[in-house]
Parts: sequence; structure tokens; C-alpha cells
Amino acid sequence: MGKLAKGVALVGAGMSKFGNHFPAKRNPDLWIDAWLNAVESVDNGIEPKDIDACYVGNYSSDLFNHQGHLGPQMANLVGLTPKPAARFEGACASSGIALRQAIIAIASGVHDVIAVSGVECMTELPTAGVTDVLATASDSLFEYPAGATFPGLYATLASAHFHKYGTTAEDLMRVGIKNHENGAENPYAQMQQSIKDMMISKKKRYEEQGREVPDWSDEFDFLKSSANPIIASPLRLFDCSLITDGAACLFLTSEEKAKDFTDTPIRITGTGQGSAALSLHDRDSLTSFIATKESARQAYQMSGLKPKDIQICEVHDCFTIAEVVALEDLGFYEKGKAVEAIKNGETKRDGALPINTSGGLKSKGHPVGASGAGMAVEIFKQMRGIAERNRQVKFDVEKAMSHNLGGSGGTCVVTIYQK
Amino acid sequence: MGKLAKGVALVGAGMSKFGNHFPAKRNPDLWIDAWLNAVESVDNGIEPKDIDACYVGNYSSDLFNHQGHLGPQMANLVGLTPKPAARFEGACASSGIALRQAIIAIASGVHDVIAVSGVECMTELPTAGVTDVLATASDSLFEYPAGATFPGLYATLASAHFHKYGTTAEDLMRVGIKNHENGAENPYAQMQQSIKDMMISKKKRYEEQGREVPDWSDEFDFLKSSANPIIASPLRLFDCSLITDGAACLFLTSEEKAKDFTDTPIRITGTGQGSAALSLHDRDSLTSFIATKESARQAYQMSGLKPKDIQICEVHDCFTIAEVVALEDLGFYEKGKAVEAIKNGETKRDGALPINTSGGLKSKGHPVGASGAGMAVEIFKQMRGIAERNRQVKFDVEKAMSHNLGGSGGTCVVTIYQK
Repeated sequence: MGKLAKGVALVGAGMSKFGNHFPAKRNPDLWIDAWLNAVESVDNGIEPKDIDACYVGNYSSDLFNHQGHLGPQMANLVGLTPKPAARFEGACASSGIALRQAIIAIASGVHDVIAVSGVECMTELPTAGVTDVLATASDSLFEYPAGATFPGLYATLASAHFHKYGTTAEDLMRVGIKNHENGAENPYAQMQQSIKDMMISKKKRYEEQGREVPDWSDEFDFLKSSANPIIASPLRLFDCSLITDGAACLFLTSEEKAKDFTDTPIRITGTGQGSAALSLHDRDSLTSFIATKESARQAYQMSGLKPKDIQICEVHDCFTIAEVVALEDLGFYEKGKAVEAIKNGETKRDGALPINTSGGLKSKGHPVGASGAGMAVEIFKQMRGIAERNRQVKFDVEKAMSHNLGGSGGTCVVTIYQK
Repeated sequence: MGKLAKGVALVGAGMSKFGNHFPAKRNPDLWIDAWLNAVESVDNGIEPKDIDACYVGNYSSDLFNHQGHLGPQMANLVGLTPKPAARFEGACASSGIALRQAIIAIASGVHDVIAVSGVECMTELPTAGVTDVLATASDSLFEYPAGATFPGLYATLASAHFHKYGTTAEDLMRVGIKNHENGAENPYAQMQQSIKDMMISKKKRYEEQGREVPDWSDEFDFLKSSANPIIASPLRLFDCSLITDGAACLFLTSEEKAKDFTDTPIRITGTGQGSAALSLHDRDSLTSFIATKESARQAYQMSGLKPKDIQICEVHDCFTIAEVVALEDLGFYEKGKAVEAIKNGETKRDGALPINTSGGLKSKGHPVGASGAGMAVEIFKQMRGIAERNRQVKFDVEKAMSHNLGGSGGTCVVTIYQK
């Protein structure tokens, strides 16, 4: 594992609103929204002529939209034809991979400026169809025929964590509560409401309808009730991320070139990627992701940083248990100790290590192939001090990380950003 | 467009037999066949511990096999877990893109040794299903709903070429005849028979069956008969490449590292990639591919070579017309002049510029996502002087090229190899 031969910087980042957009918007529309939003974020402006290549992360436009070959299609929409354009896939880590390959391409000297994006339009299919498509990121010879869809696979991982470390359903609920509190402050999020506010709204609606008002004293009461049905025990509805249409776009440049676009580039000092057997039954551990550990190891080594140096992190909370496991695998907390830190509020916006200030996949939404690029958008905003509403952290963010997981941990990409 | 910051070399290459393998073999089996074949080709041997990452080109395992997330799955089968593993997609140029990204990654200093592969298992679907899946590489908002499948799109391009340059159906037939003559000499090819031999076999069979024996004096008679039905006018069956299951694997290293594996590495001195609008109606020309021209321009510039320097080339003959257009767009012949050269035998094995000595996609087969890597396998063999049977060219190949096209020219990747 070598060092980057050349410095790389992030000079712009933007995203479409995440949400349920089909049929009003499809991949091309979402991509253009993200592109325009990212263009606006570049201090000195950026034009197609400035850009050398177009890297697109996408999980399965094939199955979601019956459209492959997204690279040149997206490039053509924004005037990048005939430049190189390609699609990168690693399940829900697809745009994390696109980002990593762009970092590598700039370091190689082949390209100076790359538009990196993630796009996914999931709601063209009904929910059962989406669940089926996502299941193709598991092993379709072993897990899929056994009926194991992703909520079931993550429920297995949660059960193992509960068994080994005494983690509880309530511990997981705290992750969702925090992420919705953050998402409520993000105008680009799919769900912009805290769980407490949802509870209050629901009570009010019951009252107006003359129905018996549930006896919920706090969010936990609400989350333990039938209002939050079990999806795959021990995971309930609010332990699962959302089905989302959305896109995100990043402008990456070499460090020298960055000066043309901004006086305050964000350097990318670490990239790591790891893999694991797709099937859970092929793994040594159900409470830790080897792909996360490996990618974190590489990224820390490349940047020279240690877990304690990271000030904020966007982690891949496709399920609440995934956030818990990530916080441990990334080295922020010892195995089994993350839930205690979460309980103490350490991962809240005003805590010692704010996690998923964007709202995470849980509240911001999870357009699978776009999620990795979406994380970098939040890191960009927090490091620039421009996060909307009330979610900007109160200190100067000099060192940040994003963690993008694919499938049930078959792929992981970790990126480290520094001022 | 910069230079590679570091030299890159090809030290091993191998492939599965191309053919109709499903259900006996699926992607995992084909990939292992290719891997083992490539391992055998490395002079000093290679082991998983020597390899830093696994890059997989694949068009649509999603639609062909209901399996996504191929990177970590393939990596795990050969002992590469937990190393980085990703899938790259650009329609039929998918493994050309994987190869290019691997070249870039080695040049960047991040990786020293990469296993690059292409895999595709198409025959899990019936032919109509395959045609449908391939059509998702066209524009699914415009071309696909109009019923334009790939034979139709390439028939349109052929008609335009006929109109503009006076190219004829017989000109195209010569491409197929030549490629089948080459494929007959390739033990890994799907169809290992010359068209003349097919004609003779067919005559014999008719004779044995007591049926009227057709009055075919040569291959052209045969190809103009109902034995070669029109698929999409002016293209007939033998103008179309094959539906194939197959995989190919390449070992790429930095130039320094190459010494560990062989005394005769093949240097990769040029890589270029271009894109175009997916839809034909969005293009300026129907007789030239802008993506090919752009990728060739980049690759020539990077390597410092000119078209006249290239001694052999594997070009993307998904349809016979595609080979004609490629020979022109790559700068080997002026526009409209390639068919004359083909007629003169220049592109045959013993001609001035042997093209598709492997048999090409037409005869070797076209497992779409594997075809780009498969081209590099042939280049490797020809440059090493180890091409099987009677297809080794009679001179020392010092400079070669591969040309991998995606869709109806939406993507192109060109690679230049030198001793």
C-alpha cells in the first residue's frame, strides 16, 4: 500500500434534495440537480472545459431503471462529452469507490480535475422490488435463495452484537434519535423531523381524529410501540435507513490545480478500501467488518492520522447497528463500548465526536449508489463552516472522515479529509 | 491529459475458454478458470499475497445473473480478501475501463500489483433476454422504447457508412471471414471454424441427408444465402458477434515490481478513454465514433506513438461494421478507405497490419464485460510469441494496441503495449 504520488483536494460539493422523486425526476434530473448545486459551491466557478473526466457511482440502474452505461449518459448531460466517463460499483459503497478512484487518478498524473458523482433512483420500483434489488448485493447463490434480504442480514449482525456485548434495542434507538435530530436541520434530507416531533405530531393527529391518544412519555416509548413495527427482529422500522432517489457531485483536483478554484481547498490525505466475502457464513466475525478495519487501516496509514485525530465522521448507518459497529471498527471506541459513548451523547452534534451531522442514511436518506458521495458533501460543508440551519458543529473542523459500506460489509471505503 | 507518473507493465494474462457454459459454469467458475490460466502465464509465479487489489470489469451481472457486488465476491474466491475489490462498468468496454483504472492506480503509487479481470455469464438468459439486457446500454429513455436493439443500431451505422463511402455488404463479409479464420486457430475461441469450413460442413450434411446441395462456390455465396439470414438490414447473422460466457484475467504491476515476476514484461505506455452521447440522434456523425477518436488521441499522445507504429491491434468487432469504423477512427486508414485495405488482405494474419488475430468478438466470442480484458490476453500472447496453433504472427511484435468499445460507441478505451 503506497502513498499518493500527488496531493488531491476537494474544491466543490453539492447534492440534489434526497427524497421520493420518481417519476418527476429520474437519474438524469437528479444528477443535474447535484451538478448545479456543486458548481455553485466552487468559489471561483467551474466549467465543463475545466474538467478532465466524469466518474459515476451507481449501484444498479440496471435493475432499478433498466438503464446501464450511466457514465457517458451523465457526462453528456453536463457538456463533458467526449471526456472519459465511467461507472463504479460496489453495492452501497459505489460512489465511495468512484471517489477513491478519482483520488487515485489525480495522484497518477493522468487527470487534474474530476467530477465525481453518485446517482440512484430507487423508487421507480415498489418497496418489495427495491428489497429484491438490494438483495443482489448479497450472495445470490447462497444468501439470496435462502430468503435473506438486507434487514434480515443486519438483524443477524445485531443479534450477534447483542449476544456478545450486551447491546440492547434501546441502544440502537439512540442512533436513530440522534440522526433524525441532525436530519431535521438538513434542508436536503429526505426526513426533516426529529423522532420526538414525529411522536408529538402523531399524538396530535390521534387527538384530532378522536382516537385514543397513546401513552408515550418520550421517544423510547414511541419507538417501542406498534408505531415502530418490527421489520426483522431485533430491528424495527426506525432502525432501517430510507429508500431514496438522489444524487451528489464532488469536484476533485490536484493540490496545485485547486488554487484555480478556491483559496480554501480541502485536502484528501487518506483513502482506504477493503473487501470481505459476500456471505455472512464465510466470515470469521459477525460483530465486526473486516472490510471496514482494512480500509480504515489503509486510510490512517496514508494520512498519518489516528482515530483520536478525527473530529467528525459520516458513517454508513444503513441500519442503526451498522453505525455502532462502524464506530468500533474505525477505532473510535473499543469493541462493545460504542453504545456507552452514544448514550453519553458523545456522538451528538455538540458531543466530543459528532457522527452523521447530515442526518445519516437514516434521516438524510440512502440512494444507495449516491450515499458515499453524499457523505463527502456533508464533510465539505462542515469543514467550510456552511452546514445549513442549526447543524454546523461549533468548532473548526480540521480533520474529518467518511465511511461508506457496501452490502452487508462486502466492500468498505474510508476517506480522510484535512484542511 | 497528463502522463503516467510511473511505468506500468503486464506480467501475466489468461482466460477461460469462451463459449456457452451456463449452467455448468457461472461467473465464479469462469473467473477461477481465467485466474488459474493467468497465474500459469507468470514466469516466476504469482500468489494472492503478491497482489494489492482486484479490479473486475462486468457489464450487467445484475440483469444477466441477478447478482451485483461482483468485486468482493470474485476477490474472495481466489484468496484476495480483505484487499480492495471493485467492479467497473462501461457496457462492453467494462473490462477496458477496469484495465485503465488499474494502470492509473499503479501509476498513482497506491498499488503495485493488481489483478484485473472481466467476467460475464450471458447465457443464463435466453437470446431475447440477452438482446434486451444489451439494449440497456443504449438510451433507455429514447432508443430502447423505440425498439432499437444493438443489431438495429449498428445496422443504422452500417447504412450510413454504405451511403457515405460506398461500403458494401461484401466488404463487411470479409471482416467476418478473416476473423473466423483467426478464431479457428484459437483453442479458447467459442467458434473454432472458418466460414469456408462451415460452408463445406453444411454442404456435406445436406448431401448426407439427401437434400439438394446448395450451389455455393465460395464463402460469399454462402454468406449471401438464406444460411446467413438478415438480422437487421444490411447486417446478417455472420455480421454479428456471439453471445458468450467467459472471463479473462491480467496481472498488472509497476515497472520496478515487474522484475519480480518476469524478465520479459510488456510495458503499457498509453491509455486513453472517451465518451459520447448514448443516443445516435445526439451525435454529429454516424460513420465515426468520437469516443474512439478521443481515446486514440490520448493513448497515442501518452505513448508518443503514431498509428503507423502499431504492428497489431485487437479491435472491438461487435459487428463487422464496427471493425471497419474502428480501423478508420484509430487512424490506420483514412475514412472510407479501410474496406480497400481489408480487401487487399492487409488486416489478415500475414498482412501488413494484422487485426483481431484472436478471432475477435466475432469468432472468439463476446462475453461483453470480459471482452476488453480478453483483447489484452491476445496482445500478451502475440507479443510473447506464444499464440496457439497457427495464428502467431511471423514478426516480432514490439508495439500493439487494443480497442474496446461500449454500447454503440458511448464509451471507448484504447490501450498501447510496448516491449
